[in-house]
Amino acid sequence: MLECRAQKATIIERMTYCLAIKVDAGLVFAADSRTNAGVDYISTYRKMHVFGVSGERLIVLLASGNLATTQAVLNAIQRDLEDPSAPESLNTFHYLFDAAHYIGQISQRVQAEYREPLKEDKISPEASFILGGQIHGRDPNIYMIYPQGNYISASNDKPYLQVGETKYGKPILDRIIRPNTSLEDAARCALVSIDSTMRANISVGPPVEVAIYQRDELELRRNVTLDYETPMFREMQKRWNEGLRRAFDRLPRFDWEK
Amino acid sequence: MLECRAQKATIIERMTYCLAIKVDAGLVFAADSRTNAGVDYISTYRKMHVFGVSGERLIVLLASGNLATTQAVLNAIQRDLEDPSAPESLNTFHYLFDAAHYIGQISQRVQAEYREPLKEDKISPEASFILGGQIHGRDPNIYMIYPQGNYISASNDKPYLQVGETKYGKPILDRIIRPNTSLEDAARCALVSIDSTMRANISVGPPVEVAIYQRDELELRRNVTLDYETPMFREMQKRWNEGLRRAFDRLPRFDWEK
Repeated sequence: MLECRAQKATIIERMTYCLAIKVDAGLVFAADSRTNAGVDYISTYRKMHVFGVSGERLIVLLASGNLATTQAVLNAIQRDLEDPSAPESLNTFHYLFDAAHYIGQISQRVQAEYREPLKEDKISPEASFILGGQIHGRDPNIYMIYPQGNYISASNDKPYLQVGETKYGKPILDRIIRPNTSLEDAARCALVSIDSTMRANISVGPPVEVAIYQRDELELRRNVTLDYETPMFREMQKRWNEGLRRAFDRLPRFDWEK
Repeated sequence: MLECRAQKATIIERMTYCLAIKVDAGLVFAADSRTNAGVDYISTYRKMHVFGVSGERLIVLLASGNLATTQAVLNAIQRDLEDPSAPESLNTFHYLFDAAHYIGQISQRVQAEYREPLKEDKISPEASFILGGQIHGRDPNIYMIYPQGNYISASNDKPYLQVGETKYGKPILDRIIRPNTSLEDAARCALVSIDSTMRANISVGPPVEVAIYQRDELELRRNVTLDYETPMFREMQKRWNEGLRRAFDRLPRFDWEK
């Protein structure tokens, strides 16, 4: 029984929530840390991974999906970064979309290796990624890499990308995020979006990681991890709840109530 | 080409949004009216249907899914109501859960008839329903009838049921709805929930129907249809947007902002 549980844990599935926001001032990345293999086996793994060379490039990767797949992708990224003879690595690309393509290819390779053995147990090897950052001399951008390996970037009309359990936290992003939103407001909006998702879906949970990248800094200077015990996060949840209640109480009455 | 479109329209699919709320004071039902066969063919059909005998029973049925299936179910309900020799009808049951069972059975029968011919075109015959109301001498209740015909009722911990595109509009229900919420507040919350869904998903759209049933009235006295032009609905959207913005602006600052 214990062995069976251990195997279940190694092929853990992650329905969780990651998002990235692109505003004029830079980028915001946020992710929960909940990992589960069914609701009876829940643990936490970091989903935010930071790469780059200070002053030259910054790349942030958010991972969602099958944990074995996302870890294998990260292992391959690491090996290429440390191998001087590797034909390419996150430190060699001139464009962020080439980095997105590279991760999509690795992800496809890993998934192909385990698809058949996992199929028997009806477990999906799929993983999704958000990649964002900036390479010196170019604009910052964010990309979503689908489980099939192809990828899209954010647009001015939809300046954010989400993977995992995306729907509960989408309405607040649509209402708040604009190209001229400040980085700190975008980060607060990401926190509210994750908080709404955590309330609705037990497979999304704290701690929450938030990274704020200011355009042209080419390194990550603001990176916080928030737990239910973190005063700022607790205060944010309390004020948001009160603010929603106040907004609700001010809604117009029906004709017959007047 | 026109004939092809007409057939596409008859086997229209409905991903839309209906919900019912059960509070101590009674029940609230709400539904959008958007129907689509792909985003290039959008029309409106009522999804809320009211049955009963004044002073004896009230039954409200919300329908979501394949339009041909939901219409066939409604046709069968109507025939049984008008046929004195029918073994059972919505007017004969002593319990609401028997009415839920009856609709689940009809839905299964209709789906079975069209499953094979629809399979070729990868169209699902599935439909979901919410049934609610009150039968004289018993408590009001609401039931969700799954596409497979089985059904569940609401509980005190989760005093609402949703079918269709449910996730965007769930967070506000979780925050506001309690057993002692007033019927009008529950109706306003349903409107906010539908409005959030309409903003996120083009297949959910106005007009919006809302029905308010007060416990023990045994007939439906409050029933409104709201469009974007309806002043109350427009004012509600405006105030909710402003209230959310105000709540957002009052969220705590990060340490480095102070």
